[in-house]
Amino acid sequence: MSLLVTGSVGIDTVRTPYGLNQDCIGGSAIYFSLAAGVFTSIKLVAAVGDDCPFNFEEIFEGKNIDLKGLEVRKGSKTFRWHGTYEGSMNEARTDAVELNVLAEGPPTVPEQYRDCRYVFLANTAPSLQKKLLDQMRGPTLVAADTMNHWIMTAKSDLIGLLEQIDMLVLNDGEAKLLTGHHNLIEAAKSIIEMGPKFVVIKKGEHGSLLYDSRDNIFVLPAYPARVVVDPTGAGDSFAGGMMGYLAQAGSVDVMTLQKAIVHGTVVASFTIGDFSIHGLRGATREMIEERIDLLRKVTQF
Amino acid sequence: MSLLVTGSVGIDTVRTPYGLNQDCIGGSAIYFSLAAGVFTSIKLVAAVGDDCPFNFEEIFEGKNIDLKGLEVRKGSKTFRWHGTYEGSMNEARTDAVELNVLAEGPPTVPEQYRDCRYVFLANTAPSLQKKLLDQMRGPTLVAADTMNHWIMTAKSDLIGLLEQIDMLVLNDGEAKLLTGHHNLIEAAKSIIEMGPKFVVIKKGEHGSLLYDSRDNIFVLPAYPARVVVDPTGAGDSFAGGMMGYLAQAGSVDVMTLQKAIVHGTVVASFTIGDFSIHGLRGATREMIEERIDLLRKVTQF
Repeated sequence: MSLLVTGSVGIDTVRTPYGLNQDCIGGSAIYFSLAAGVFTSIKLVAAVGDDCPFNFEEIFEGKNIDLKGLEVRKGSKTFRWHGTYEGSMNEARTDAVELNVLAEGPPTVPEQYRDCRYVFLANTAPSLQKKLLDQMRGPTLVAADTMNHWIMTAKSDLIGLLEQIDMLVLNDGEAKLLTGHHNLIEAAKSIIEMGPKFVVIKKGEHGSLLYDSRDNIFVLPAYPARVVVDPTGAGDSFAGGMMGYLAQAGSVDVMTLQKAIVHGTVVASFTIGDFSIHGLRGATREMIEERIDLLRKVTQF
Repeated sequence: MSLLVTGSVGIDTVRTPYGLNQDCIGGSAIYFSLAAGVFTSIKLVAAVGDDCPFNFEEIFEGKNIDLKGLEVRKGSKTFRWHGTYEGSMNEARTDAVELNVLAEGPPTVPEQYRDCRYVFLANTAPSLQKKLLDQMRGPTLVAADTMNHWIMTAKSDLIGLLEQIDMLVLNDGEAKLLTGHHNLIEAAKSIIEMGPKFVVIKKGEHGSLLYDSRDNIFVLPAYPARVVVDPTGAGDSFAGGMMGYLAQAGSVDVMTLQKAIVHGTVVASFTIGDFSIHGLRGATREMIEERIDLLRKVTQF
């Protein structure tokens, strides 16, 4: 089934122990689309400024990604992010951020996209996520990401959004902050009580946890990556692999959700293996299936 | 096969969000023995002072634990530890520690214990671990635990010990400190190059990782515990469950090792469910198998 993503497109400058990558393509919608596009066709909704230096047709060549929802705004500037990863590289330090076009109004969802069945609202202000969602006509599954900043500054908006979505995707620190629970299972349960039927907690190098409104749990370690070059986009790639798999399957039963988590986990392992989208862009369905076999081998007993 | 453990017996005072537990039984040898004793007969080698208030016969009643190696030293005082767990409870803050008998010479391994095939050297000074190991006659499998303190203050002793043992068990922070690698797989590989055939890295609430000299990896999440009352002894219980299972199986092939990790993981989940040894002491083989079924259900795809 069709999958729509709303999110950011950015110009990233990233420093990791492996080097400095300047002015490369980034943003949640980019990573999500490339990851999900392995499984199903994607409709991308985002905004950039007219300074945006990227050739999207070339970047997405041969990929299943419809760019009619990508607004290029005259006189606006594209979102920029500078970050550094050190040590265990589990979290980026933000050196500089220029919201630019992201601080303006949200992009418009094109009329022909509004019947999409699967929707992913990448991290942005919950009030904007709501405005984007309100443009859709009765989607089957709506998932959203969020972050500490919104939990701290726009909690009531976020709580309102949670009543309208089916799945929240967030990291472990965010789940603890949102709920006040240190135990992740308690935190997940508490989020379910706020509205969503499913919550997925991302734990970086430690994998992820899925919890649903019937108290089903699924926990999976991360893919055992020997080399992590640049973790930027890992979470969005995970979400993209997961949602792409779900949209392709057209179902959200327990087994399908577990397999979706597995696919998201492995897709993210390609992202972190190289700077920017270089690792993810080259990942084929066959390469993903190979790593799933390996993940099965090192986790199943 | 027979399993010998050398380690501490202590008087613990532990504060967690669930309350204060004063002057309760603790120490690595106690948790290890109760955990491993579910699977095989244990020979415990440790020393306490004549102030030790515990009735070991009562505590270990009905358990497979031989106490002939437990020295009660006249005029010595028993090891004491005061610790506090807060927040995510992943690490204890040590409020006070009195080494007492642990600062004296190591206990003697009784003559009739010296042919034990499986040996676990719980955390203490590597030079003492070596003295204890030197009393054994050609064991089949020797595993040892260590901690940050020895990595920082007795690294050359520890490196020497690693050449004599088959398996090192340590936590993720310790593995990073010992090797300088932030990536746990790289850290594990680096430890293998120091001598042991197997390394097990404990990641607390995030589970564990097994790596061997043939580059086999096994990663397992922790048992999904909804309530963690007191994490004290979780690592020693994990090691005990694992080593007990291995000694019972009498083999260290890949499949047996993976199952041993699974058993250790589940045994530790009983420890953290209550203060001191109360959760662990009540765990039967049947209760452990039940939780293994649940762990399989929430991790297998």
